[in-house]
Amino acid sequence: MSKYDHIKQAAYEANMQLPKLGLVLFTFGNVSAVDRELGVFAIKPSGVPYEDLTPEKMVIVDLDGNTVEGDLRPSSDTLTHAVLYKHWTEIGGIVHTHSTYGTAWAQSQRDIPIFGTTHADHNTVDIPCAPPMEDAMIEGNYEYETGFQIMNCFKDKGLDYKEVEMVLVGNHAPFTWGKDAAKAVYNSAVLETVAQMAYLTEQISPVAPRLKDSIIKKHYDRKHGANAYYGQ
Amino acid sequence: MSKYDHIKQAAYEANMQLPKLGLVLFTFGNVSAVDRELGVFAIKPSGVPYEDLTPEKMVIVDLDGNTVEGDLRPSSDTLTHAVLYKHWTEIGGIVHTHSTYGTAWAQSQRDIPIFGTTHADHNTVDIPCAPPMEDAMIEGNYEYETGFQIMNCFKDKGLDYKEVEMVLVGNHAPFTWGKDAAKAVYNSAVLETVAQMAYLTEQISPVAPRLKDSIIKKHYDRKHGANAYYGQ
Amino acid sequence: MSKYDHIKQAAYEANMQLPKLGLVLFTFGNVSAVDRELGVFAIKPSGVPYEDLTPEKMVIVDLDGNTVEGDLRPSSDTLTHAVLYKHWTEIGGIVHTHSTYGTAWAQSQRDIPIFGTTHADHNTVDIPCAPPMEDAMIEGNYEYETGFQIMNCFKDKGLDYKEVEMVLVGNHAPFTWGKDAAKAVYNSAVLETVAQMAYLTEQISPVAPRLKDSIIKKHYDRKHGANAYYGQ
Amino acid sequence: MSKYDHIKQAAYEANMQLPKLGLVLFTFGNVSAVDRELGVFAIKPSGVPYEDLTPEKMVIVDLDGNTVEGDLRPSSDTLTHAVLYKHWTEIGGIVHTHSTYGTAWAQSQRDIPIFGTTHADHNTVDIPCAPPMEDAMIEGNYEYETGFQIMNCFKDKGLDYKEVEMVLVGNHAPFTWGKDAAKAVYNSAVLETVAQMAYLTEQISPVAPRLKDSIIKKHYDRKHGANAYYGQ
Repeated sequence: MSKYDHIKQAAYEANMQLPKLGLVLFTFGNVSAVDRELGVFAIKPSGVPYEDLTPEKMVIVDLDGNTVEGDLRPSSDTLTHAVLYKHWTEIGGIVHTHSTYGTAWAQSQRDIPIFGTTHADHNTVDIPCAPPMEDAMIEGNYEYETGFQIMNCFKDKGLDYKEVEMVLVGNHAPFTWGKDAAKAVYNSAVLETVAQMAYLTEQISPVAPRLKDSIIKKHYDRKHGANAYYGQ
Repeated sequence: MSKYDHIKQAAYEANMQLPKLGLVLFTFGNVSAVDRELGVFAIKPSGVPYEDLTPEKMVIVDLDGNTVEGDLRPSSDTLTHAVLYKHWTEIGGIVHTHSTYGTAWAQSQRDIPIFGTTHADHNTVDIPCAPPMEDAMIEGNYEYETGFQIMNCFKDKGLDYKEVEMVLVGNHAPFTWGKDAAKAVYNSAVLETVAQMAYLTEQISPVAPRLKDSIIKKHYDRKHGANAYYGQ
Repeated sequence: MSKYDHIKQAAYEANMQLPKLGLVLFTFGNVSAVDRELGVFAIKPSGVPYEDLTPEKMVIVDLDGNTVEGDLRPSSDTLTHAVLYKHWTEIGGIVHTHSTYGTAWAQSQRDIPIFGTTHADHNTVDIPCAPPMEDAMIEGNYEYETGFQIMNCFKDKGLDYKEVEMVLVGNHAPFTWGKDAAKAVYNSAVLETVAQMAYLTEQISPVAPRLKDSIIKKHYDRKHGANAYYGQ
Repeated sequence: MSKYDHIKQAAYEANMQLPKLGLVLFTFGNVSAVDRELGVFAIKPSGVPYEDLTPEKMVIVDLDGNTVEGDLRPSSDTLTHAVLYKHWTEIGGIVHTHSTYGTAWAQSQRDIPIFGTTHADHNTVDIPCAPPMEDAMIEGNYEYETGFQIMNCFKDKGLDYKEVEMVLVGNHAPFTWGKDAAKAVYNSAVLETVAQMAYLTEQISPVAPRLKDSIIKKHYDRKHGANAYYGQ
């Protein structure tokens, strides 16, 4: 028994959703779940196959990236998670994957255009793609700087992390987050399907227009607005 | 026991086909089944995962969209179903999905061209794409107006809903219908595979011609004509 | 017991491979198996879902397309099978599917170019696409004429049905055959994967060259030549 | 019992991963595992379906391609394996597949560009594509020469087989290797997913830039460098 069991369990269950949703090959992804009161998060151990995961193997790390509990080395992306938890104080869970279509858009260094209501049900803007990092950031504390690269992208584009819960890191792959780890995984699957649909849309019609503002507003409001009427 | 059990069961079974056929991610779809004599239809509750569905959870709604029986909120698309049932009096079931290829065509705002016999076995025309709605319709009673947008599209193109049982709503996604909920689901799967084949056809040959009238007529007649000889 | 049990069983088993190999949606495909001595073939009944098939439901038909035994109506494509069995006297089994990539090439009305050794392991030439049929043939005995359209294509291109065991019918979809029904199904799966690879090859390099003759010859010979050394 | 049981078991287990990972249709692939002290490797028998494989059916072959133990004929690609084992003395396992995206790149005769970190986690360079072989090599000892074609490609490009564990053979398909058979299979799956992502990247942005050197170095070092911090 550990006082961290609840976030270990949450991180474990959320990690196990990634292969089930077809979002990872081998160990190319990780999920974490934070406890804000305890100031720590549980994250997947690095390079451990999903079929060998157990809640007990999750690693407990503080918001500076120091391991607090656990025998295994945490995910190599741990510092990116730590930076985002530290600065974006209302995030409860974070996911990183190399899902196929999301990664292809990241490699193309393009925002994913908002072409339809599947996208608008979740975001009012294009899914942002942060530019590749400067060499000094890469050669320095790379994963730590990746967190800042994401936050700088949101600052530059005037986005709110509580409204837009997903980003592509240019050349790299998607990161998503949410109120808890399960919601962050949900957002990773949404990003992947929206990325595939946007790819196909441009193939079918290179002049396909972005969704107009009235529909964007309507679809977002019905799921997330003051008078939302989606769900129970 | 309820006098609506038969349509609850039909709607439940048809809804459960959507994930099995790969037509939905999470809760991005819904099926309804109508009883014309009772003047009501059974529809999926909003935002409930498919693995948690039961026949009892289906919501009974009248053709004006008022809930008649059920503890849960009906699908947010309920008014679109209600409008179509009210005006297209021979429909027995309706399906809405965000299936990948169908949605990509809807986002491209293009009709799906009739390129081959897979398409012609089910439709004699291109699968119509209704234009995006006017702002006044969107800001008003959106889902209600979506039903009219579909019907106006059929009126403008001179189509008969008893002949063409599927439509794309521009920027949004497909709707299909049929004599019952099971047939409407069948049509959703047909639309998705025809949408994928048409996409690939244009990639392989940008000058691929539409199917000629003689083959369209032949294939449709052998499945649906007076002397149909497909099936038992 | 029936003297046709062996071909009913062979046709049944081969039909059941189609959904397992991902080559059919619903009932969009059929397989037959011939007994040359008895002068009849067993074929899937029309429109019966694969999960409801049994060996007993296979329909026995003679080479003119007359039903000899069985309570169900045979596949609507039965006359195409009958014509091919009658004229191509060494075929033991025939398959028709609307598999996704094969059908897209058929709709594009293009032969599938021989780009690599996966193709060359099975064919020394491009996979032929028969042109769409003349209106008179379509309006006449359509499925019967489809058989002749395939044979005429082979005659025009100088192909031997014992060497090339697959064809696309323009606007329609693939047909394959082989020494028995199982081999014909194998050929359908080969056609589908070769069709997908050829599509991707042209997307990756629009100037990708056809395979050169020396490799075509080598790969074909090692699997099918006098000194074949593939397999046991 | 045989003194080769350990490599038979390793080759068997690695072969069985190919269908599980979606890398083969029917028998279009093979894996081998070498024992350097005994100077032999175990390889899949030719043309035997994966569902019929057992460890006992693996064939033991020496580094000149002579069968040492086993009742079945070894894979038709055996001589390619033998040549690579003989000259690249630190390889423990080899895989050959006709995986869909990898084969499409091979048919396009293009190196797979390094577009992102998924690629850079495993290679610091584009995945090389060896040119199609000269006619004299093809008409001679084809599979033996295929091994030399691969080695010549590495020599011409100045690549080290211990750093780059994968190659495309132009017109043909991928080969991968590694310290053991399991690692070689892992590399085959990595190649396939990187090939798919690179294809999609170019479709989304035909001007997508190659990854810059600083990121290539960083990602490779964190997984493979002296201070690697990926994995346990």
